[in-house]
Amino acid sequence: MSSSTDRDAAGAVPEKTVKGAASISSIAAEAGVSIPTVSKVLNGRPDVAPDTRARVESIIEQHRYRRRRARQSSRPALIDLVFHEMHSAWSTEIIRGVELAAANERAAVVLSELGGEHRPRREWFDDLLARRPLGVILVLAGLDAEQRRQLTTRNIPFVFVDTAGEPPPGVPTVGSANWAGGLAATRHLLALGHRRIAVISGPTTMLCSRARVDGYRSALEDADVVVDPDFVRYGDFYVQGGYNHGMALLSRPDRPTAIFAGSDFQALGVMRAARELGLSIPDDLSIVGYDDLSVTEWIGPQLTTVRQPLREMATTAAQMVFSLARGERPPNERIDLATELVVRESTCPPREPNARVP
Amino acid sequence: MSSSTDRDAAGAVPEKTVKGAASISSIAAEAGVSIPTVSKVLNGRPDVAPDTRARVESIIEQHRYRRRRARQSSRPALIDLVFHEMHSAWSTEIIRGVELAAANERAAVVLSELGGEHRPRREWFDDLLARRPLGVILVLAGLDAEQRRQLTTRNIPFVFVDTAGEPPPGVPTVGSANWAGGLAATRHLLALGHRRIAVISGPTTMLCSRARVDGYRSALEDADVVVDPDFVRYGDFYVQGGYNHGMALLSRPDRPTAIFAGSDFQALGVMRAARELGLSIPDDLSIVGYDDLSVTEWIGPQLTTVRQPLREMATTAAQMVFSLARGERPPNERIDLATELVVRESTCPPREPNARVP
Repeated sequence: MSSSTDRDAAGAVPEKTVKGAASISSIAAEAGVSIPTVSKVLNGRPDVAPDTRARVESIIEQHRYRRRRARQSSRPALIDLVFHEMHSAWSTEIIRGVELAAANERAAVVLSELGGEHRPRREWFDDLLARRPLGVILVLAGLDAEQRRQLTTRNIPFVFVDTAGEPPPGVPTVGSANWAGGLAATRHLLALGHRRIAVISGPTTMLCSRARVDGYRSALEDADVVVDPDFVRYGDFYVQGGYNHGMALLSRPDRPTAIFAGSDFQALGVMRAARELGLSIPDDLSIVGYDDLSVTEWIGPQLTTVRQPLREMATTAAQMVFSLARGERPPNERIDLATELVVRESTCPPREPNARVP
Repeated sequence: MSSSTDRDAAGAVPEKTVKGAASISSIAAEAGVSIPTVSKVLNGRPDVAPDTRARVESIIEQHRYRRRRARQSSRPALIDLVFHEMHSAWSTEIIRGVELAAANERAAVVLSELGGEHRPRREWFDDLLARRPLGVILVLAGLDAEQRRQLTTRNIPFVFVDTAGEPPPGVPTVGSANWAGGLAATRHLLALGHRRIAVISGPTTMLCSRARVDGYRSALEDADVVVDPDFVRYGDFYVQGGYNHGMALLSRPDRPTAIFAGSDFQALGVMRAARELGLSIPDDLSIVGYDDLSVTEWIGPQLTTVRQPLREMATTAAQMVFSLARGERPPNERIDLATELVVRESTCPPREPNARVP
């Protein structure tokens, strides 16, 4: 994020009079291109030769040229919410959190999903720049260094919700206490008497997956339980992944008596695998999910899960974007909201503690 | 919808040269107001006296003044998707369908939810007008006559997905074959041997609820089964409503042996009520849902349901909006996509056919 101390209180930046900033014409002169070409680059239009674009971008960055904010135009403000992939209840919670914050600022929410093959990456990013949003919230979606630079140059702040990988330094991120969530889930199972506890998490490339597994490991280590490497599984956060890993784990002669799933959807998959194998929940298998989606209260048995405050995370991220757009710096670059274990019906003491064979 | 035959092939409408259209200045002169005042009304700005606004709107309408399309501006096109209330998996399907069509047209989707108290109706509509979307898709959300007129005046087409009530004549609507869905669900239960069949539908004010119940009635009449008035229930489409009605119905001594629920969420509520009353599904109670959300495949037992093609409905609605924005008229004002019964595990023959007491 570039500093924005030369804005006025309302976040307004006069186009040509900002201290230290260049006008379009002086940028054009310095780059040796026409004024319309500079304008095209500023608006993210694709019809500019790559080297020309790079030269203009570099001069813009040197001069910290400041675009008029979207707010100053005749159109109401927009905030972009970008999902790597939307997934039903989970996404709805995020959307609602952003909508809430946006309504307070009277901004409209533009929603995008990058997972589909129908939206080429470059085209999409050009359109994002051209619609000049007040800011961008990315959910498990990444930006490369060039894209981050282009947003920064245009004073379009961006905030990550969770992270698809190691967040770049200086990029504001809102997450939740994944490590503590994994710890709490596993401690709950240990307290019930379980020792053969497996974990099914999301992709290893996602920090949140790894943090939850590390919480699981720490809880087991504290209890002097040796972690069986085959009991630690990474996959995706979806039902089918939970089903597949659940089937593999529960078909073993020395199957686990408890499984900590990385998402409620994965837990649904594990529950289905257990049903197909004739295992009763929670008597034959205890299951803990992650997220606390509303469906977990309605299925039978109701799912014990780690509540992740998705809506509050999204509201916090949107508020950070609005603050940054006003030129304020967030008090912290990384905010993790608390997770909470919600005990329901899918966990109980193991039928035979330390059983090796069912 | 106003006709749009005076647009060119790309939907472009030159601001001041459209045949029969007035310029901003001539509208201002005719209304006896300033040019900025006309501009404010066109942009949906609130700071115009109501009678002035009404006079200007009326003159604009007479002259069929045509705004430049959003596409012609420097910003990429927007399409507005408006939910009365978002509800997890159901809304995600709709969003995905609209995103798909929008990506093909390289338009961005602005998402709004009207259910929250944080977005006052008038302010929201003013902002909608001011951001000049290519068009608007409304999901179970209504527009009053004045709002419809304001959109029509500005050449902003709108399409309803389903309808919150009787759709006004001439408003394009995409729905699904609700009556046929109710008929198919009930015929399936009759064919299994059920006679004591209850229905729990959505609000009576929604046409889709009433059509499903009418399909249910027709199936029962065809089979010479008398409809018990207390077996026909209206409520909402949510889990709690299904639970409450399910509890009431299943607590009766002459409880139904089968329930047709108006949504998969309602079916989840009925399943929970059955579990709490110690009734086994499908042996003691057959349940049919409506929608075919992905969760229905993962719960145990898997839910028999009526598949409603939500994603395709949303894509169709968005395509209609884009066609209308290009000045094309849709082949039909009302398009109903087919519904389909999906038989899974939650239905079977009744334990005691025609049982009066469990």
